[in-house]
Amino acid sequence: MARVYVGGVGLTKVGRHFDKGLIDLAAEAAFKAIDEAGVEPEALVVGNMMSSSLQHQDNLGAYIANGIGLRGIPAFKVEAACGSGGAAVHAAFNMVKSGVYNAVLVVGVEKMTDYPTAVVTEALAQAADAEYELFYGASFTGLNALMMRYYMEKYQVSRREMSYWPVMMHKNAVANPYAQIRREIKLEDVERSQVVADPIRLLDSSPIGDGAAAVLLVSENIASKLTEKPVVEVAGSAMATDTVELSNRESLDAMPAAAQAAKKAYKMAGVEPRDIDVIEIHDAFTINAIILLEELGFAPRGQAAKQLAEGRFAPGDKPTANPSGGLKARGHPVGATGVYQVAEIVMQLRGDFPGVKVDKAEIGLTANIGGDGSSLIIHVLRRV
Amino acid sequence: MARVYVGGVGLTKVGRHFDKGLIDLAAEAAFKAIDEAGVEPEALVVGNMMSSSLQHQDNLGAYIANGIGLRGIPAFKVEAACGSGGAAVHAAFNMVKSGVYNAVLVVGVEKMTDYPTAVVTEALAQAADAEYELFYGASFTGLNALMMRYYMEKYQVSRREMSYWPVMMHKNAVANPYAQIRREIKLEDVERSQVVADPIRLLDSSPIGDGAAAVLLVSENIASKLTEKPVVEVAGSAMATDTVELSNRESLDAMPAAAQAAKKAYKMAGVEPRDIDVIEIHDAFTINAIILLEELGFAPRGQAAKQLAEGRFAPGDKPTANPSGGLKARGHPVGATGVYQVAEIVMQLRGDFPGVKVDKAEIGLTANIGGDGSSLIIHVLRRV
Repeated sequence: MARVYVGGVGLTKVGRHFDKGLIDLAAEAAFKAIDEAGVEPEALVVGNMMSSSLQHQDNLGAYIANGIGLRGIPAFKVEAACGSGGAAVHAAFNMVKSGVYNAVLVVGVEKMTDYPTAVVTEALAQAADAEYELFYGASFTGLNALMMRYYMEKYQVSRREMSYWPVMMHKNAVANPYAQIRREIKLEDVERSQVVADPIRLLDSSPIGDGAAAVLLVSENIASKLTEKPVVEVAGSAMATDTVELSNRESLDAMPAAAQAAKKAYKMAGVEPRDIDVIEIHDAFTINAIILLEELGFAPRGQAAKQLAEGRFAPGDKPTANPSGGLKARGHPVGATGVYQVAEIVMQLRGDFPGVKVDKAEIGLTANIGGDGSSLIIHVLRRV
Repeated sequence: MARVYVGGVGLTKVGRHFDKGLIDLAAEAAFKAIDEAGVEPEALVVGNMMSSSLQHQDNLGAYIANGIGLRGIPAFKVEAACGSGGAAVHAAFNMVKSGVYNAVLVVGVEKMTDYPTAVVTEALAQAADAEYELFYGASFTGLNALMMRYYMEKYQVSRREMSYWPVMMHKNAVANPYAQIRREIKLEDVERSQVVADPIRLLDSSPIGDGAAAVLLVSENIASKLTEKPVVEVAGSAMATDTVELSNRESLDAMPAAAQAAKKAYKMAGVEPRDIDVIEIHDAFTINAIILLEELGFAPRGQAAKQLAEGRFAPGDKPTANPSGGLKARGHPVGATGVYQVAEIVMQLRGDFPGVKVDKAEIGLTANIGGDGSSLIIHVLRRV
């Protein structure tokens, strides 16, 4: 089977871009990725969740393709809620691996800040089950709060132990020029911050922001001509799903789809968790990161928060978790997040990430969640 | 490169399914396709445009996968407006061709009838440009009306000549058990029907309906074990795009993306227009079909309507156009339409389409449009 490489990446700073629409954001990220690779994309896959709800704009593939100067190329949108970006990379990965395309651009883009919070909250909630959850008044944060409370009770994890994750994320983000929030916080700040949905507090939650990320996937033929930077291979790309509604899950303290997708991605790449140097994982809420660390094989069940409290997964440790600052502090422009993760890991492996660097990183992993664990997309990336 | 085959197909009747939701419709089509193939899908791609606007449900891959009993498998939604179904088939085609998956189920599904017409009209209009068209009051029908008027003026095509298409579609649909409208109409009926957006009349327009279609794409390894029915290969799968907004098109009487995508699909399949026995093309409005027949190479520019008036493209002719009855009479459950087309051509090539049959058909084509010509997806199918 053909191999798939990353020809270039591009990011915009996550934030409140009142002066920029979907096309402006997409263009900024896409141009960087195309410039790095020095090749024109043959197709475009857009990762986006909410353009239909917020911008009232569908047909997003053609819309972005034409808007960023790529009129005519094959283009479509991939949606998997908050996992849209990762799923778009997975679709594009297959388009290059098939041999049909030599260069496929993935652009994850989301514009969230021009709308009343209630409108955005409702749009985000569409990641949950409309009939069995939203109809009864559940918010997306409320559903994640159920998972956090259950986990803390079952494994006797304290509020203090949960607080180490957001503190580390804010610290990591300070050096990241693309991060939305570049400000350190203390454990007490997390614990005194406003309750959003008990036990989730404001500083357990990712902010709302606009952003775009681009990754240009290329065939071996093109990758072999790239000389300016180390080349990174997409060594593993896998997905798995679970019930959208929490009520039918086997347990609230687990995300089995993460373990299933990771198993496939590890196998495809021929690696194990202990081989991974750096990870970017989905922490829309603190509890997401804790469960992912366990499902991906980096901590025993019920132990991730306790290990974080002991300094594990910080810069210098293997794997280093979310040197970007993660969704918590780099930000979470929803449909773009999975593409941010891949772009950030690529830069880590090339050694040119402009924030917290992971020295001599050779193998990295991304974990992007859609819903509260219903869509999981895992990528394993390797410096060639 | 690996070859891709169709292991099974399944359709629901298009209509007003007040008693069925997205999952019920998807399940009915998917189970037929899976039963035909006798293999479990390894992944699911959902073609859908409006679940976000109408059902307030995103995360549609996981939602449908779990809902139809495929919990756990990789799943995501593909959106390309009215071309979502075709684009989903294109994404799935690449997933099998890559060698990563051996069996990928495509389900196109749309639920349109439980909502006020104004809500559906607004949701459909999201296929056009929100800022440069919808903001100024253009409806999707209005934009297509501009194309129809321009075409009729430029090529001096009469209202009478345009009316032959819907009459033929209604006639073809009578025998199709999956069609929404199984009733013949006369030329005068079209011309006396209500004006929707001049010169488009009600009987130039596809109806609003619910429906789901499924196609299970499989690798050569699986296809070689299928013995019950003739095997059909996806010999060509291609996309192209154009500006979403009509104002930036080079002309209103053309859809260059159709010609571009067709050229690629013909080349991939090693065929020419004259080799094609049967086609299912996108006729949301009469003008779409007329322009497509020309762009795909079946009629000279400005001649398609005149040729239809002379009896061309009817059953018995080569190619036969839309023996299903097309979007006009089979119906147009938007995100499902492109999958309906592929399933219908597969049945024609196998000889088991339960409506108007095209004798000894060996090669067929589908043309699915997103927006008013901004996303084009072409598939060429061949009986092995």
